[in-house]
Amino acid sequence: MKVGELVERSGVPLPTIKYYLREGLLPAGTPTGRNQADYGPEHLRRLRLIRALIDVGGLGITAVKEVLRSVDDPRQFGHEVRGTAHYLLTRPTRADRSAPEWEQARAEVLDLIRRRGWHVYPDRPEVDQVADAVHAIRALGQDDLLTLLDRYAESAEQLAEAEVGVVMQRPDRAGTVEAVITGTVLGEAILVALRRIAQEHASSKYQ
Amino acid sequence: MKVGELVERSGVPLPTIKYYLREGLLPAGTPTGRNQADYGPEHLRRLRLIRALIDVGGLGITAVKEVLRSVDDPRQFGHEVRGTAHYLLTRPTRADRSAPEWEQARAEVLDLIRRRGWHVYPDRPEVDQVADAVHAIRALGQDDLLTLLDRYAESAEQLAEAEVGVVMQRPDRAGTVEAVITGTVLGEAILVALRRIAQEHASSKYQ
Repeated sequence: MKVGELVERSGVPLPTIKYYLREGLLPAGTPTGRNQADYGPEHLRRLRLIRALIDVGGLGITAVKEVLRSVDDPRQFGHEVRGTAHYLLTRPTRADRSAPEWEQARAEVLDLIRRRGWHVYPDRPEVDQVADAVHAIRALGQDDLLTLLDRYAESAEQLAEAEVGVVMQRPDRAGTVEAVITGTVLGEAILVALRRIAQEHASSKYQ
Repeated sequence: MKVGELVERSGVPLPTIKYYLREGLLPAGTPTGRNQADYGPEHLRRLRLIRALIDVGGLGITAVKEVLRSVDDPRQFGHEVRGTAHYLLTRPTRADRSAPEWEQARAEVLDLIRRRGWHVYPDRPEVDQVADAVHAIRALGQDDLLTLLDRYAESAEQLAEAEVGVVMQRPDRAGTVEAVITGTVLGEAILVALRRIAQEHASSKYQ
């Protein structure tokens, strides 16, 4: 298809598509003449992935670029890609980690992981992020919220089993990487929003 | 305590504290002389809440200001405050909602809410956000991920019941509002990070 059709079918404006082409987020089309190129369904698919990550997942353009680089890297696959994708999708935090209480919070998170029997790399950034939140909750004197930690872990585990189960039924590697990214980012958007809706329902019972 | 002690105990630098005072995020202390004021534990607590929302929750300064305004508003309480806090904490999305397929996705989300028996306001922004994600997943041809929708809702409901249950045991209104904000923002950070850690564990089984 010509670029005009790509604009129409993706809903992404021409200047934005040109920007993605320049930045390497979208691979070049097949040249068909001076300043003309032909685009295939893979371009349409890629555009939809980019827009989903930015518009729904709230990712920045740099993060999207990094994620797509890992999708396109033929050396990566399976477990490794999932790790990389997760790593790239991690939102940076700026929490102060110098206090001894933070170290204690991190030890509690590692203990939780051990109790659940999760075989994971202990240096992944998410471990520190959970520690940040645990530390902040305690600093606010809201320790009772921490009684929910095991419940969060249980829900996380149940969801993760189901999500990975669906993705692992995909036959192709490219599809798997894309599914991991989509599942991580869009699944998170769904979970987070549904939790807030459910909180409204749960608190309406206390009126 | 003097402002120096506030700096030391909160870990927030003096220029930042002065900025929060100017912007009204932190209430003024009790004047004790020219350019001197006395601060109480409520100032320390407020500083910790601000830093938790920004550093761990990833909120912007404008969002924090709005959230704190609702905490400080004596007219608001209970259900209403929870709604307001949620509304303010909603991350803005930029998804295209003009397609008829988006309307269909939204109808599915409302159907899910009805099936679960949730009594909620259908115009809350989170309903649209779930529709954004459902629509994006379908546009990417990854419909199999949508088989997880009911599981997300079930986990969301279980967590929400537990979370609201904890918060509702608090006696004081100010504490409740703060707990809602803390629980929403920091609980979300914990859930999101634990889900990713659990995904690593779940996918390690497929090696």
